[in-house]
Amino acid sequence: MSELDFIRTALDDLAIFVRAKHAARDGLVVSSKTEANDLLTEVDVAVQAELVGRIRDAYPNDAIFAEESGMNERPRDLNGRVWLIDPIDGTQNFVRGLFPAFGISIAVAANGRPFAGGVAVPGNGQLFLAEAGAGAFRNGERLRVSNVDSISSARAEVDFSCPSDRTNTLSQFSPLIEKTGQIRCHCAAVIGLCSLATADMDAYVHVKLNAYDYAAAMVIVEEAGGRLTRLDGSPIHLFDGRPGVLGSNGILHNAFVDVIAEGHQ
Amino acid sequence: MSELDFIRTALDDLAIFVRAKHAARDGLVVSSKTEANDLLTEVDVAVQAELVGRIRDAYPNDAIFAEESGMNERPRDLNGRVWLIDPIDGTQNFVRGLFPAFGISIAVAANGRPFAGGVAVPGNGQLFLAEAGAGAFRNGERLRVSNVDSISSARAEVDFSCPSDRTNTLSQFSPLIEKTGQIRCHCAAVIGLCSLATADMDAYVHVKLNAYDYAAAMVIVEEAGGRLTRLDGSPIHLFDGRPGVLGSNGILHNAFVDVIAEGHQ
Repeated sequence: MSELDFIRTALDDLAIFVRAKHAARDGLVVSSKTEANDLLTEVDVAVQAELVGRIRDAYPNDAIFAEESGMNERPRDLNGRVWLIDPIDGTQNFVRGLFPAFGISIAVAANGRPFAGGVAVPGNGQLFLAEAGAGAFRNGERLRVSNVDSISSARAEVDFSCPSDRTNTLSQFSPLIEKTGQIRCHCAAVIGLCSLATADMDAYVHVKLNAYDYAAAMVIVEEAGGRLTRLDGSPIHLFDGRPGVLGSNGILHNAFVDVIAEGHQ
Repeated sequence: MSELDFIRTALDDLAIFVRAKHAARDGLVVSSKTEANDLLTEVDVAVQAELVGRIRDAYPNDAIFAEESGMNERPRDLNGRVWLIDPIDGTQNFVRGLFPAFGISIAVAANGRPFAGGVAVPGNGQLFLAEAGAGAFRNGERLRVSNVDSISSARAEVDFSCPSDRTNTLSQFSPLIEKTGQIRCHCAAVIGLCSLATADMDAYVHVKLNAYDYAAAMVIVEEAGGRLTRLDGSPIHLFDGRPGVLGSNGILHNAFVDVIAEGHQ
C-alpha cells in the first residue's frame, strides 16, 4: 500500500467517527463549557491515537510529529521520514460555528518536505488527497488553483490565530488587509489552504503555524498549482523553526510577498 | 396571514430556487468570471423581483427598500411601514467559498424598527425566523444567544467589507481585534448576525452596513436575547443614516462599546 492509500483509508475511517462526534456535540456544548472542552479533547486524542497506532503498525521506523499528547517535539533526524498529524485542525470550530470549518490532517515528509498528504473535512464530506508529482484531488476530482492575477481582485484568508499573536498579525498584515479585494478568516489552516487548492481563495497568511498544521495542505496546494513559502517568499523546510506561512495561487505569490514586506516585521 | 407567515412562505419557496442556482454555479464560475457575475446578478435580481412582486400583491400600501434594481432609496416616510430586502447577502460567497456563507434576508419595519424578519441560508438548509415579542427560531427550534461574559473568551465576527472601508475598519476595530479571544470573518452580515442568535458567535461589528443587510437579523438577534446598536451603543433607527453596527449577546455589549471607543473614529 502506498503512503497515499494508507492516508486515504485512515481518513475515510476517521471522518465517519469525527462526523458522528460533531453531530452529537450540540447538547454537550450547550450544557457546559467544560464538557465541551472535554469532548473536544476526547475527539482530538482518539483521532490521534488511532492514526499513531496505524502508522506504528505500517511504518514502524518512521518518526511522528503530532499536536496532542506530548508528541509535538521535533524529530531527531530533521531530514528523515516523518509523519505529521493534526487530529482536529480548527478545534474551536468543532465546538462552535454555523459551518463545520475543521479538518483532520495527516502527511508524510522526507528531507523536510511533505510528499503525500490528506485532509478530511468531515462536516461537509470532503476528502482532499495529494501526492508529489501526481496531482491534488477532492473526492476524486482533480483540483486547480485560481487564475486571479491582481491583489485588488483577490480573496485572502488572514488567520488571526490566538490573542498572543494578534498584535503581530495586525502589524505584519495591515497593508495586505488594506489592499486585498476580499478578506476572510475561518481560523483553521486546513480550511484556508484547501480553499486555495479549490480556487475558492487566492492567498493565505499566518504569522505562526506549526508544521503539522500545514504539512498535508502544503502538498495539496502545491499539487493544485499553488505555492507555499515563508512570509518572505523563501522555501519551507518543515523543521526550519520559522513560523510564518504564505500560500497563494502562484500567480500572485511575489505580489503578496511584497505587500507583506510593507508591514512591520 | 401574518407578516411572519408571509416571510416564511416566501423564504421556503425561494430557498429551493437559490439552492439549485448555487449547486449549478460551479461550471459557470470556472469557465468565466463574467458569467459568474452574470449568474450572480441573475439570481439577485430574480429573488428580489419575486419578493417585491409578492409584497406588492399582499401589502400594496407598504414601502420597499432593497439592494438591487434602483430600489435602495430611503422611503419617503421614514417611520411608515417598510419592507427591507437583501436578495443575496454574501454575494461573493455565493460564487466562491468552501462553505455556503450567504443568505436571503427579508424584514418588515415600522417606526424605523423591524418587527418581523427571516433569513434563509439555502446552502445548509437553515431558516431563521423571528417576530418582535414572540422569539427567534431556526428550523422551528427556539434560539438563545451565548452566555460568554468576557472579551478574552469571546468570539467576534469582524466584517472587513470592501477595500474602500478597510482602513476605517482596521483603525476603528484594532483594539477589539487585539483583545477578543477569537476573530472570524465570513463577510456576510446575515451569517455573522445569525451566528449570534445561535450562540456560535458572541459579537459582530461592521463599520458601514445598509439597513436591508441587517433588518431581518436584527429581530432574530434581539428575539434570541442579544442586542444590536450603533457602534457607540446608541439605539438603531433603520433610516437614521448612521452606518456602523455592533451586535452582541447582550452580556458583552457595553464591554464591546468600550473597546470600540478605544479605536480611532
